[in-house]
Amino acid sequence: MTRDECVALDARDPLAHVRNHFSLPEGIIYLDGNSLGALPKSVGPRLRKAVDVEWGQGLIRSWNEAGWYRAPQRIGAKIATLIGAPPDEVIVTDSTSIDLFKVLVGALRMRPGRKRVLGVVGDFPTDSYIAAGVADAFNANFESASADKLIAAIDENVAAVSLTHVNYRTGFVHDMRAITAAAHANGALIVWDLSHTAGVMPVEINAIGADFAVGCGYKYLNGGPGAPAYVFVAKRHHDTFHHPLTGWFGHADPFAFAKDFVPAQGMDKLLTGTPPILSLIAFEAALDAFEGVDMAAVRTKVQRLTQLFIDLVDERLARYDFTLASPRDAARRGAQVSLAHPEAYAIIQAVIARGVIGDFRAPDIARFGFAPLYTRYADVYDAVATIDAVMTSRAWDTPAFKSRNAVT
Amino acid sequence: MTRDECVALDARDPLAHVRNHFSLPEGIIYLDGNSLGALPKSVGPRLRKAVDVEWGQGLIRSWNEAGWYRAPQRIGAKIATLIGAPPDEVIVTDSTSIDLFKVLVGALRMRPGRKRVLGVVGDFPTDSYIAAGVADAFNANFESASADKLIAAIDENVAAVSLTHVNYRTGFVHDMRAITAAAHANGALIVWDLSHTAGVMPVEINAIGADFAVGCGYKYLNGGPGAPAYVFVAKRHHDTFHHPLTGWFGHADPFAFAKDFVPAQGMDKLLTGTPPILSLIAFEAALDAFEGVDMAAVRTKVQRLTQLFIDLVDERLARYDFTLASPRDAARRGAQVSLAHPEAYAIIQAVIARGVIGDFRAPDIARFGFAPLYTRYADVYDAVATIDAVMTSRAWDTPAFKSRNAVT
Repeated sequence: MTRDECVALDARDPLAHVRNHFSLPEGIIYLDGNSLGALPKSVGPRLRKAVDVEWGQGLIRSWNEAGWYRAPQRIGAKIATLIGAPPDEVIVTDSTSIDLFKVLVGALRMRPGRKRVLGVVGDFPTDSYIAAGVADAFNANFESASADKLIAAIDENVAAVSLTHVNYRTGFVHDMRAITAAAHANGALIVWDLSHTAGVMPVEINAIGADFAVGCGYKYLNGGPGAPAYVFVAKRHHDTFHHPLTGWFGHADPFAFAKDFVPAQGMDKLLTGTPPILSLIAFEAALDAFEGVDMAAVRTKVQRLTQLFIDLVDERLARYDFTLASPRDAARRGAQVSLAHPEAYAIIQAVIARGVIGDFRAPDIARFGFAPLYTRYADVYDAVATIDAVMTSRAWDTPAFKSRNAVT
Repeated sequence: MTRDECVALDARDPLAHVRNHFSLPEGIIYLDGNSLGALPKSVGPRLRKAVDVEWGQGLIRSWNEAGWYRAPQRIGAKIATLIGAPPDEVIVTDSTSIDLFKVLVGALRMRPGRKRVLGVVGDFPTDSYIAAGVADAFNANFESASADKLIAAIDENVAAVSLTHVNYRTGFVHDMRAITAAAHANGALIVWDLSHTAGVMPVEINAIGADFAVGCGYKYLNGGPGAPAYVFVAKRHHDTFHHPLTGWFGHADPFAFAKDFVPAQGMDKLLTGTPPILSLIAFEAALDAFEGVDMAAVRTKVQRLTQLFIDLVDERLARYDFTLASPRDAARRGAQVSLAHPEAYAIIQAVIARGVIGDFRAPDIARFGFAPLYTRYADVYDAVATIDAVMTSRAWDTPAFKSRNAVT
């Protein structure tokens, strides 16, 4: 594969025009959209209006007149279309961690007597930390099974199975249909974390029969740093699901200022406190980039971009000490490719210094994400060429790149 | 008191210059800073830089290089100076409701065997809703005592007393020192909600010996719509306090991606998920308006503004059916004055239509807030003149103002 062939692939890419919706720095190849999505051009003007006009001029009136009050529902409806849910099964609120807490406590309440919450080994830490916190607080046990033994570990004492659909370190795609079916066969509820899924592959959360899902707004959805999270609850659970974070925005009639809490109907009961409107408005504007985008085409492009990267790594980097930590089977691979290397930390720093931004995940993973809305085939080619140059020159082998003082 | 005398008071006001830090709409008198603070001029430029440069150009690197990662601590330190705490006892995270949940669950854990959480009748609903949710989830009982019987209701079965320092409907200021002392005399912990306090009166949260405090960012602190909340935990509790919302940002080493949760030291353990950076950055910039502002002068101005309003209401509106719902004693009064009236809803709508923005609180309260950083004595005069004109003309008595379709 030559660079010219990659440029030709870009010229034929049916999603190539979507890149125009993003503001990207000159001279940078950004392969970290799996950690923080790039800036959609729609965000700046929308946020300026929110600050200068809605807050500055409209003041308190903007809760009604500028539609702030229903932003969690509106953004939820936009995300619903990306994950195969109707608009009234998704709402945007709080963080993935807090939404997971709500969902897991609610799941335990829906399965009284069952004492196990089951996760998967190697899942994103916050998922395990929250599940352990819930278990500790509510006299349950949180356990993790390895991916290949997960289904066998589900029994009739499991209240909920909770895991990230696409693993954050490896990009491994769990079998959503089989795991959901196994949970249900044992009477357990299923919670899917879609943080590394939504926006890069089609999801049919309802067709699959899932009970709950959560996911973050700031990765492939490009909602901005720390954008609020979304949560899905299947409609059949809307009446029976309850959680203990009963703040006033989840009340059936918040502005009645009633003495007792009465949960709102439907997804509104998932709300807790007053939501961070400026972050929500940025997120809402960002989702415009998905308008008219065919998710099947997105999935195809993701598989081609990641395959191109793997092929080029095989071709050009075989003489270095890299191990592919992501699935070779494109059907089991999300939008990232991870390379294990004993010097991964220093290598990533050196590659970033040459303008290719990937990231490091402890202990030894160099991770590259291929956000399909703005990553070009030529970017993949250039990224591998840069890694090759860093390895050939041993540019990574300096104290500046080896010292671990960065937090992300 | 004439309008000229009010203008003269403004000319002598040592805080008059602070109004220049705010962007306020022409032709509006804004008396709802107790619900949503006005826009500080520093916010727009700071947020544009955050979007265009830090997110757009810096991308993931900005977590370190633009200081996003430590925003919760930095903003907490700024608020600490307003409430009498050292910088490492306050952090900004989540919403008031969620922070209250964390603190109350933690308080119950610190007082095992005690089964009562005690609040006050008529407190802001979310405070009661969250306390009831906590009690329900953790086998405790939440009860509310009337303000005059609160201290007598505290006994050795109370784990925590939790209430808002300044009541949202009436502006009544509870005796922080006496209630804190009564809680401690019975071995109970105290939680103060400072949402209607911070920014309009000095607080000595540490001198008073409080255990916990929470408060919202979007009222008198002007942090923007739904700005994240702050939480205070006295240093003596930092090692023993734990809460169940154990997300990765509260981990001792989040980027080690360790299997098990180990809480961070100090206030960092109060963090849960990835914080909404754009809302945080707006909040941080907004607090610049407090730089060099003497909180004793703020308290004096608040007492004078509210007294002027009460005096003018007494003088001009006595013939209408208003009842003062706020304390006449300035020492017991926060920065708002509430007038009860059977037609309060329609009156507020009519007054807003004439450019004086107050708000309505069910069932019968017309509420006016006097944010001391940008409210002028002449505004108070003009506001009462407007209310007078609305009452004299019965402008409120139309279906358009009586129909309750607004949510705030």
